[in-house]
Amino acid sequence: VTLALVLARNGHTVRLLCRTEDEAAAITQSRRAARAPDVELPALIVPTADAHGALDGVDALLIAVPSQTVRENARRLREAVAPTTLTIHATKGLERGTATRVSRMLLEELPQLRPVDVCALSGPNLAAEIQRGLPAATVIAGTELSSAERAQRLFHGGGFRVYASDDLTGVELAGSLKNVVALAAGIADGLAFGDNAKAGIITRGLAEITRLGVAAGAGPETFAGLAGVGDVIATCYSPLSRNRTAGEAIGRGVSVQDAVSGARGVVEGVEATAAACVLAARHGVEMPIAESLREVLFDGATPAQMIRRLLEREATREGR
Amino acid sequence: VTLALVLARNGHTVRLLCRTEDEAAAITQSRRAARAPDVELPALIVPTADAHGALDGVDALLIAVPSQTVRENARRLREAVAPTTLTIHATKGLERGTATRVSRMLLEELPQLRPVDVCALSGPNLAAEIQRGLPAATVIAGTELSSAERAQRLFHGGGFRVYASDDLTGVELAGSLKNVVALAAGIADGLAFGDNAKAGIITRGLAEITRLGVAAGAGPETFAGLAGVGDVIATCYSPLSRNRTAGEAIGRGVSVQDAVSGARGVVEGVEATAAACVLAARHGVEMPIAESLREVLFDGATPAQMIRRLLEREATREGR
Repeated sequence: VTLALVLARNGHTVRLLCRTEDEAAAITQSRRAARAPDVELPALIVPTADAHGALDGVDALLIAVPSQTVRENARRLREAVAPTTLTIHATKGLERGTATRVSRMLLEELPQLRPVDVCALSGPNLAAEIQRGLPAATVIAGTELSSAERAQRLFHGGGFRVYASDDLTGVELAGSLKNVVALAAGIADGLAFGDNAKAGIITRGLAEITRLGVAAGAGPETFAGLAGVGDVIATCYSPLSRNRTAGEAIGRGVSVQDAVSGARGVVEGVEATAAACVLAARHGVEMPIAESLREVLFDGATPAQMIRRLLEREATREGR
Repeated sequence: VTLALVLARNGHTVRLLCRTEDEAAAITQSRRAARAPDVELPALIVPTADAHGALDGVDALLIAVPSQTVRENARRLREAVAPTTLTIHATKGLERGTATRVSRMLLEELPQLRPVDVCALSGPNLAAEIQRGLPAATVIAGTELSSAERAQRLFHGGGFRVYASDDLTGVELAGSLKNVVALAAGIADGLAFGDNAKAGIITRGLAEITRLGVAAGAGPETFAGLAGVGDVIATCYSPLSRNRTAGEAIGRGVSVQDAVSGARGVVEGVEATAAACVLAARHGVEMPIAESLREVLFDGATPAQMIRRLLEREATREGR
């Protein structure tokens, strides 16, 4: 809904595909959506439950769903999507088990799409702030710059600044892996280790997700940009971030299960940590923060053990 | 005094060179220093006002003074410093007017020193947290790794983790230029633009100080490390940072003069912004954030004009 607001503010008509007729009718009547309760939806946002009608003749398709529901949501659209539809997703996550990127899942579930037409949007975009109309910047990436620039023209405007990139792999991996860093930084918050230690963990966390990204074919400059550093910073310091907040609870001693179920929405960092370790093994990259975090999330290690393990690593040269 | 505490905690005797006999006597008696009022100084810290006695037979010389006082402080030591003294400075700033790095100033004022023996220490090291014994990480750089590693062995220990680097230029420039970003981020705070906009400014700010550093001979990995990203993050989000806090006051409408004079200590970012613009012109690097900040600090532009100017720049491709 947040990105639909951005598009509507830029003058575009947006068909908002709802799960049911009832949901569409309720939003049409109330002009409110659960994910943006404080904003009145403008008339350019048109709720519907009819996938075929929604996709008929569109300039572009925007997908923003939790990562583990991408395949089922895409399957639902299979018959309705025209072959050359510009498709932009804003999902920050990787598939459980396989660590498959969202663009790959979309191409597998919507085989009529051309790879060049699938883009990812990612950056420091806390939804509540964008809904309020505060300024924000983001990146849209495709495998070629031309398609990213087509999407850029749709979203760029007002206080929403869109940069184009041809590093689709990098933007998708940075957007997904930043939640690993956010969980770790949240744990440092929960343990009350201070801003120095937190900055150290974030910096070393950025270094290790960059190493992984580069090994997987991404450009290092993407991790230094809005989808990397920018999103990591916003997520690690915002009280609005679900991932940081869940990490903070875990650091204070709340169980992983309670911290995750207490969040409003999906804590993408949990699955992203598992996926990061899958990718780290696949590409032979050392990721001490993701690995020690995985032990906390899945193997019952305590946050104190995690931090002790990180602190006991030998400090040597800085660099790659 | 903070780094003296780190050294003393590692078991080293530290002679603390005071400006006057009275000051040395007062600290000797009270075991308190003005810059660390909540900490009792251990017996290994020995206050003195005698430069010759202080430097007699030392393993290393540590200098941590405001950047615009480096030359006068170094001159005071000229007769007392032995030619092969390992000299570590922790000063984050550049010389007014010339933008000379601190290591260069030290070599000019202490010509007996060998360039290889002059190191810089920089990183996310908010003093109050280190004084309390909270964990922190930092970088020490020399022109050769061997001297950085000698200094590393003195400072590394307990919760204080030291990484060695051979990128002296990078560590000095990153440590100085991060205060430019901190002032700009503080202004965004003062204008209440939210965490997305602040993250955007920090990310683009990091990109421009990295571009400048690389043009001046630094390694980009230093700006992605503790002295760059790490220190920028800690400074931009800590209520303890003088530079961020001064920027926030300016963003709220306080005059530059009042914001600077209201800070407890030197706001290094003001001179660093002027120096950044000097270096940007020298190296032909575009620095929109530093340049628009310079207009606020020195030319009477308003924070709102600064942000408007930045937002009106065309967003294009991300990257270099």
